[in-house]
Amino acid sequence: MQGEIITIGNELVSGRTIDLNSWYAAGRLTASGLKVTGITTVGDEQEKVAQALRRAMKNSGFVIVTGGLGSTEDDMTCEIVADALDRPLCLDKKMYGQIKRYVDSRGIEMSKSLEKMAWMPEGSKILHPKGAMCGFSLMEEGALLYFLPGIPDQMRYLMDRYVLPEILMHAETLPVFRQRMLKVYGLSEPSVAEMLRDLSKMSEKVVLGFYPHFPENHITISLRGRDEPSVVKELDVVEEEIKRLLGACVFASGPESMEEVVGGLLREKGLTLATAESCTGGLIGNLLTNVPGSSSYFMGGVVAYSNESKASLLGVSRQTLARHGAVSDQTVCEMTVGIRERLRTDLGLAVTGIAGPEGGTRAKPVGTVHIGLATTDDTLSGKYRFWGTRHQVKLNTAMMALDWIRRYLYGHSFIPGL
Amino acid sequence: MQGEIITIGNELVSGRTIDLNSWYAAGRLTASGLKVTGITTVGDEQEKVAQALRRAMKNSGFVIVTGGLGSTEDDMTCEIVADALDRPLCLDKKMYGQIKRYVDSRGIEMSKSLEKMAWMPEGSKILHPKGAMCGFSLMEEGALLYFLPGIPDQMRYLMDRYVLPEILMHAETLPVFRQRMLKVYGLSEPSVAEMLRDLSKMSEKVVLGFYPHFPENHITISLRGRDEPSVVKELDVVEEEIKRLLGACVFASGPESMEEVVGGLLREKGLTLATAESCTGGLIGNLLTNVPGSSSYFMGGVVAYSNESKASLLGVSRQTLARHGAVSDQTVCEMTVGIRERLRTDLGLAVTGIAGPEGGTRAKPVGTVHIGLATTDDTLSGKYRFWGTRHQVKLNTAMMALDWIRRYLYGHSFIPGL
Repeated sequence: MQGEIITIGNELVSGRTIDLNSWYAAGRLTASGLKVTGITTVGDEQEKVAQALRRAMKNSGFVIVTGGLGSTEDDMTCEIVADALDRPLCLDKKMYGQIKRYVDSRGIEMSKSLEKMAWMPEGSKILHPKGAMCGFSLMEEGALLYFLPGIPDQMRYLMDRYVLPEILMHAETLPVFRQRMLKVYGLSEPSVAEMLRDLSKMSEKVVLGFYPHFPENHITISLRGRDEPSVVKELDVVEEEIKRLLGACVFASGPESMEEVVGGLLREKGLTLATAESCTGGLIGNLLTNVPGSSSYFMGGVVAYSNESKASLLGVSRQTLARHGAVSDQTVCEMTVGIRERLRTDLGLAVTGIAGPEGGTRAKPVGTVHIGLATTDDTLSGKYRFWGTRHQVKLNTAMMALDWIRRYLYGHSFIPGL
Repeated sequence: MQGEIITIGNELVSGRTIDLNSWYAAGRLTASGLKVTGITTVGDEQEKVAQALRRAMKNSGFVIVTGGLGSTEDDMTCEIVADALDRPLCLDKKMYGQIKRYVDSRGIEMSKSLEKMAWMPEGSKILHPKGAMCGFSLMEEGALLYFLPGIPDQMRYLMDRYVLPEILMHAETLPVFRQRMLKVYGLSEPSVAEMLRDLSKMSEKVVLGFYPHFPENHITISLRGRDEPSVVKELDVVEEEIKRLLGACVFASGPESMEEVVGGLLREKGLTLATAESCTGGLIGNLLTNVPGSSSYFMGGVVAYSNESKASLLGVSRQTLARHGAVSDQTVCEMTVGIRERLRTDLGLAVTGIAGPEGGTRAKPVGTVHIGLATTDDTLSGKYRFWGTRHQVKLNTAMMALDWIRRYLYGHSFIPGL
């Protein structure tokens, strides 16, 4: 069963408000195995709303309309629906009684604008009959039509409590819908597409989605089916195949961020970490500390932006800086050993590089980055070349550095550098 | 002049992703005096996209389409447009050359999916011809059609740089449109609205826009008129009045970020800065180093997440930590003096606090933050209570700390704390 969503409001077409109602409704419908084929947003204009409604009703099992219900002048969904579907407005006595009781209980007077809320298109069924929230449904030409208020809390409540259960009751659809997400780092979008090219042959019903999310790539795997076990089984097969094809580049199955994955691993293994950042300027520490409870494994670090700070805060030798430069394997190794010793942690992580747009040379162009990892036994380092803006170089450097921790703790090899 | 917006993506109709692209485009168009009459969202389905496009072109001076451009299989906007408008796909040599150079420069091979990006509907004009981003425009039946990538950064860039100016050039409206933006920190949205309540009486034609942008509030001042000098003059008057009403809370006139304002001031005065961060975990350093050339005034800092690191890296006395705790005026003062001495900078900036969601107590609830500033003459400190999520507390702390530097260098008093 498929349907459409219509959201009404000048605040939406003018870009003043983000349309969270259609997003919520679409998400709830999709998760229930129903398909949303389109979302239309129009302003508070009679003709536009009527057009959108008539159009959406074609080929739809359900249409959900939000906004334009209420007591103010620009709330005219009832009039528009009455007109568009040729159903006169009738006074709903139950609704009127309800408004009357509300008015009496607060000692205010019944006003025209309050009474207006009780006039509904003929044949309407009030949603949530005992509450003060407005909202009604209609059956027209075999389509279920729902009219909900634009206030998100009310809309969500009516959606979950009345609309969704009713649509599902009417839907003759494959009842089970499941979606998974894999997060990938270290492969470009075209590479991912290329590596998974033959996958669509494996299962015709499984739908793959690709979403670049710099510097990550996200892959969704969706399947609709008759029963949970068979859907889960088929998704398992496809997920395993993707993981086999992309290898350690898949860093999460689900919404987890890289810093959450790394944090989880550190916590699980009871290890502590300290960072020494040059070109990222604190970004790695910022990411790590976005995770609640990170203080149990992240001890802190140094942002060694100047040569002086690399020497005075981390003990990088002035000879190394003079001979090899701040952006070098030698420096990054001394940085990571330095921070690990100073904060007495299990692991030390260091980065140094040229984020740009200035500061590059022929030998060390913008985007040149060195990463270092000090452990109890060893000091590892590697060199990369990242592309893009200053911001993108910083982001890629931070991700790669965190990925080093992840791969080190899993025993995977690092993404090859230069 | 009016038009429509179409956003394409299964991630949108399934409710996986909030449609921020239509919101952004609608906001920018409206702020420029153009009217958006409808927004349509459809999945990656050929027929649906073609229908939406044909429908939107009727009665529209412009149509902006986002999504479905890229190298993967589900990116098929070009094919759909070619089909719907009966314009065959042609190889755009300039675009191909660009992709080829990109491929060669990175030592990767040209693939079918990359080449695909150079095949465009006949008569297309590539937007941003020198960049790697895709995006093109077409003129069909008198309507300007724009096809933009779904990646928000790219979409926004192309929208502002090419689409909006071109549409405005074609719009038969008052020829001069100017907009200014003021950025505000330290006042809530309702407070701003209240303080500027009488401003609309001052000038009927000037349009004010309010955009909360946590933790900032942005105000746009727009005016359309017949000639540049009179528009500029009227905007000047309104801008000055807003600045008078909101005082030092206006931190930028234009797109400048707080860290750019602070960086500009430090550079202008020839001063250097070092940071000692606890609860922000590196966020302040990250923000400061997002500004190109920040290495000339930002020397680096310490992320002192653990008590041990506050003692060993900054020299905070263990007695202070034991007696007053890590989140205290005494600790933040020792942190800021410590980092200033260690990096021999003109200014030292320190923050310590409880970002949450755990770790609060009755005396020091979540959101309690201390800020410290050490200068040649003095050590200043203050206490604040921020509300919201862990992420919001971190963001507000970093902004307030940077605002201290700004206000100190301008000679303004700080925003009062607890």
